[in-house]
Amino acid sequence: MAGILDRINKPNDIKEISPSQYHRLAKEIRHFLLHRVSERGGHLASNLGAVELTMALHLFLEFPKDKLIWDVGHQAYVHKILTGRKEGFYTLREYQGMSGFPKRKESECDTFDTGHSSTSLSVANGLVSARELSGGEEKIVAVIGDGALSGGMAMEALNNVGKLKSNMIIILNDNHMSISENVGGMANYLAKIRSNTAYTGFKYGLEDALNKLPEVGTKIVKKLKQSKDSIKHLVIGGMYFEDLGITYIGPIDGHDIAQMTRALESASRMQKAVLVHVVTKKGKGYEPAENDPGHFHGVEPFALKTGQVLRPQQGVTYTGMFSKTMTELGAQNEKIVAITAAMPSGTGLSAFAKKYPERFFDVGIAEEHAVTFAAGMAVGGYHPVVAVYSTFLQRAYDQILHDVCIGNLPVTFAVDRAGIVGKDGETHQGVFDLSYLAHIPNLTVMAPKSTKELREMLRFAVNCDYPVAVRYPRGTSEETDGLPVAEIVQGKAEVLAEAEENILAAAGKVSGNTAALVAVGNTVALAFRIKKLLEEKSVAVTVINARFVAPMDEELLLQTAKEHAVLVTLEENVARGGFGERVSALLMEHNVKTRHIAGALDNCFIEHGDQETLRNLYGLEEEDLCRRIMEGINGERTSGCSAGEA
Amino acid sequence: MAGILDRINKPNDIKEISPSQYHRLAKEIRHFLLHRVSERGGHLASNLGAVELTMALHLFLEFPKDKLIWDVGHQAYVHKILTGRKEGFYTLREYQGMSGFPKRKESECDTFDTGHSSTSLSVANGLVSARELSGGEEKIVAVIGDGALSGGMAMEALNNVGKLKSNMIIILNDNHMSISENVGGMANYLAKIRSNTAYTGFKYGLEDALNKLPEVGTKIVKKLKQSKDSIKHLVIGGMYFEDLGITYIGPIDGHDIAQMTRALESASRMQKAVLVHVVTKKGKGYEPAENDPGHFHGVEPFALKTGQVLRPQQGVTYTGMFSKTMTELGAQNEKIVAITAAMPSGTGLSAFAKKYPERFFDVGIAEEHAVTFAAGMAVGGYHPVVAVYSTFLQRAYDQILHDVCIGNLPVTFAVDRAGIVGKDGETHQGVFDLSYLAHIPNLTVMAPKSTKELREMLRFAVNCDYPVAVRYPRGTSEETDGLPVAEIVQGKAEVLAEAEENILAAAGKVSGNTAALVAVGNTVALAFRIKKLLEEKSVAVTVINARFVAPMDEELLLQTAKEHAVLVTLEENVARGGFGERVSALLMEHNVKTRHIAGALDNCFIEHGDQETLRNLYGLEEEDLCRRIMEGINGERTSGCSAGEA
Repeated sequence: MAGILDRINKPNDIKEISPSQYHRLAKEIRHFLLHRVSERGGHLASNLGAVELTMALHLFLEFPKDKLIWDVGHQAYVHKILTGRKEGFYTLREYQGMSGFPKRKESECDTFDTGHSSTSLSVANGLVSARELSGGEEKIVAVIGDGALSGGMAMEALNNVGKLKSNMIIILNDNHMSISENVGGMANYLAKIRSNTAYTGFKYGLEDALNKLPEVGTKIVKKLKQSKDSIKHLVIGGMYFEDLGITYIGPIDGHDIAQMTRALESASRMQKAVLVHVVTKKGKGYEPAENDPGHFHGVEPFALKTGQVLRPQQGVTYTGMFSKTMTELGAQNEKIVAITAAMPSGTGLSAFAKKYPERFFDVGIAEEHAVTFAAGMAVGGYHPVVAVYSTFLQRAYDQILHDVCIGNLPVTFAVDRAGIVGKDGETHQGVFDLSYLAHIPNLTVMAPKSTKELREMLRFAVNCDYPVAVRYPRGTSEETDGLPVAEIVQGKAEVLAEAEENILAAAGKVSGNTAALVAVGNTVALAFRIKKLLEEKSVAVTVINARFVAPMDEELLLQTAKEHAVLVTLEENVARGGFGERVSALLMEHNVKTRHIAGALDNCFIEHGDQETLRNLYGLEEEDLCRRIMEGINGERTSGCSAGEA
Repeated sequence: MAGILDRINKPNDIKEISPSQYHRLAKEIRHFLLHRVSERGGHLASNLGAVELTMALHLFLEFPKDKLIWDVGHQAYVHKILTGRKEGFYTLREYQGMSGFPKRKESECDTFDTGHSSTSLSVANGLVSARELSGGEEKIVAVIGDGALSGGMAMEALNNVGKLKSNMIIILNDNHMSISENVGGMANYLAKIRSNTAYTGFKYGLEDALNKLPEVGTKIVKKLKQSKDSIKHLVIGGMYFEDLGITYIGPIDGHDIAQMTRALESASRMQKAVLVHVVTKKGKGYEPAENDPGHFHGVEPFALKTGQVLRPQQGVTYTGMFSKTMTELGAQNEKIVAITAAMPSGTGLSAFAKKYPERFFDVGIAEEHAVTFAAGMAVGGYHPVVAVYSTFLQRAYDQILHDVCIGNLPVTFAVDRAGIVGKDGETHQGVFDLSYLAHIPNLTVMAPKSTKELREMLRFAVNCDYPVAVRYPRGTSEETDGLPVAEIVQGKAEVLAEAEENILAAAGKVSGNTAALVAVGNTVALAFRIKKLLEEKSVAVTVINARFVAPMDEELLLQTAKEHAVLVTLEENVARGGFGERVSALLMEHNVKTRHIAGALDNCFIEHGDQETLRNLYGLEEEDLCRRIMEGINGERTSGCSAGEA
């Protein structure tokens, strides 16, 4: 189809399109999105919902001069199309292909790298404050979803933007969803505004309403006698925002470009923060996505006609096992409650929620509240399981430390998507949790080698009267599913394979050609692959499943180190602050001179790409690790070990 | 004075006091507080302001059955008095004396350990949800200040409590201050409610207002024609909260016990979340504190008559040097802006604020927003300096990582109160920042040995085009003030004293009786004290000021390790995830077999007490470190170093 979209090849090209063709352009964009995302996977529903909104913003703004900040960022696909990045969709989310999120290094039209929720208002506030000092004239617009608005930082920002003395436009992209259904007072409030007939259409908030007062005085009094909701919404729409000093405009139809551009023009004339409330439909224009926007939030390649995923996940995922185990545990112990921050489906808690609705709590995008709420439930006699992705749990570091661990409260953290998550890239990799969790006093940190072991660890954790975090990766554990799972004992590792050479070493003889591989969680599979390579080189290999990163099994680690030529640690976490550093320190502390080889991810932010590619590129490639281990073994023999030698 | 306070010796004793004596009891409590706090130091103004409020709560609640959660917790002194802990005030904040914050292990009337701001509503929400499941009948009350309400987590909680189906009482203790003046839309909003005459006195929110409507209809229409503020406040008080599904009662005089108990009784009858807006005066009853509540927030011992501190701080503190340097830097570089989260005075930024008001931003208690706002300003071309205490910056871990460091943005973090802070105890020690910061990619982490070096590090940091954190302790640097400060070079340590034995070692001879002490920040002073002790034992000692914890000076560290019998690291941070572990890992990585002794704080939460006592008790005592080092030196000689030996 030689279409209008062909004429969009660089920023601001949309301004050359005639208004009469907007509808067709929107249709072509949706067509393009559907074909590219169904082929390669990616974020779909939120982008389909933001087509006209993004078009209106691109008609209103001048790129790259003006600044547009996307909250979260997964809804910026149309922005990428309109800034000359159509070609990128053919490599979307691939290693070295185009990112699925805004990236400053990808385009100067991307103002800020995002990925986590609820950051855009703070960023925009900073940009506006900078502009107030520099005297610039660029427009600054933040787009935030109604789901992201429940995040604490967004509300901190709302509390601050009221004092601005120059224009800042906040687009509240209200699609009535985060990834799942929204919850909480704010969601209810927005629903009321949306549904109030006095506010359909196009309103400019309070000023307009007041101007009309003399004529409608009687009507107001009449209305006043009705309910409190109708009163407040009749008198002032969006007072919640007005109370904070922010002018409210809306609600506006987020699929009506003319309405939106008029609202944006009006908003931009005010020398203060203005919130434009835009109502959009997630999944708009693709029936399967309209009907199940949660499922089509982020998708694997699927058949356009049916909406069916082309290559469904084979085998049991860690998430699936968590889901299953939680419903089992819920049946066995009525003190177990489950908490999620807007991700009942992603974390696998939907099943528990369905079976035990009264013991399930979705607090919305609010990781901090989720954790401290859990602390409160623990004091109240329950055992909460807080299921949050590794990368998002970063936001609750202080709450874990200050509210759960100082009090040594029985809370279990189910840390999903730990390690390399893959295609979402830098902002979503779960490669820091061992570093930010394992140093917190009182907190036990575990990682299972397989989905079966995850089940046992969860059973163990919910019986602890202290805090426990269990971190596990995205995907399945096919390679290790066949391994037995010994009983979980606090602080104890599990020996999975013993090198025969050990017998000699234990008897005080030379440690010889031996290596002990101590693997954290899913790197047990890697350990067995390395074992095979090493055995081909006549190295006898012991494989240990660390199980506990905090507290470590110090006794076993020290004994094992003494019995082998090299001790190798493996973990899917950055090296800094991880398991390996702690093992190095342990050996040093006990003056054990065995060579330690730390296999971990490089100390950097890791881009997008498939999990396997990234693991291999960033420090966990088996041949490379094997080479390092052999160097360690040979180094031990040749260089000796007098103090002072390197 | 044989008074009424003598009759308060255990929980609920206040219920035996006749209402006619409440006034006198309040007076006696203030008298007691003033004498104890002026003698020993502590939190004063907030406690003076909360006397009647706490009395009203204790008349209303039954302890320990009912649950009272104090936000932050520094205002719980009166609660401690009324629960039988008067004697504790004679050891207030001393090592092994009574804590200045609620502590579950101190009394079963303390529901939750607090210290950081904005946590109480989430905790109370958790307790109420637990009670809904267990069918308990205890009352649950959270007391939160207007300052703490600007913290994101508190707003996340407000968004969640609206859906509760049973009673939860939120006391908004509105004293118009956090530690300093409050800022932001919420503060303005509360000020408007307070000042609106239609709302002085005792009102039960909307329901009452509506009942009165027929009579006042005409009056309302008249008012409607005035300003938007008067409209909304006439029609509905506290609509901001009502919008979120929370019933609002207030404002109420927080020094009128009868008014408050009536409001509490009314509030407790509603099967939902109710916010009771109580207006108190910080410092009430003590003129110097009423006039300068910020100064009397937390105080050292002072003369009651004059309010003058008895033993003023001698010498230049790190905070003082930061303050001075910031105004200098502000004059030199107009791109430097300063950001604080409600602590302009505590962080020393008041001077900058006074001189460059347009470049100073106090965002209120909102550490997350502070950091991401800084990221926005950095993208906008400025160099923000974010000054936050080490313990409070924990709350912005994700923002530092995700919003500043992924983008490698030029933001300087001035991390004050790093290390042992002393009397505030567990919740306030700054002993984790090296662990939570040094593993973040792109982030440079520094620590100065003296206030003079802090100045140079700040000058260095604001010229970097990448993120830098400078962490420094509470207090002065008398011991190290005399040391010269060499030029700061990225990633380079500074050699302060060279052991003569080095010369031998460098020439390939035995390393002998040598030790290299690598000290982070203020532990340089400790290093010199240890040096003296070691030299008395004929050990030649090198002292190195690490300066950079990330990136480390790997070259110097490796070289130094090779030239000495033992390498000692010193840091005022927990051992886990700290500098020492990284040095251990570095030595292991490079197969350097020199013994490493890691001097750091124990891996636990550290209670309250004076700084020196705690340093000595928790791992940084010089004699003990000297002993460990000597063991290391002797161990090297006697035990040899064949691989496999411990």
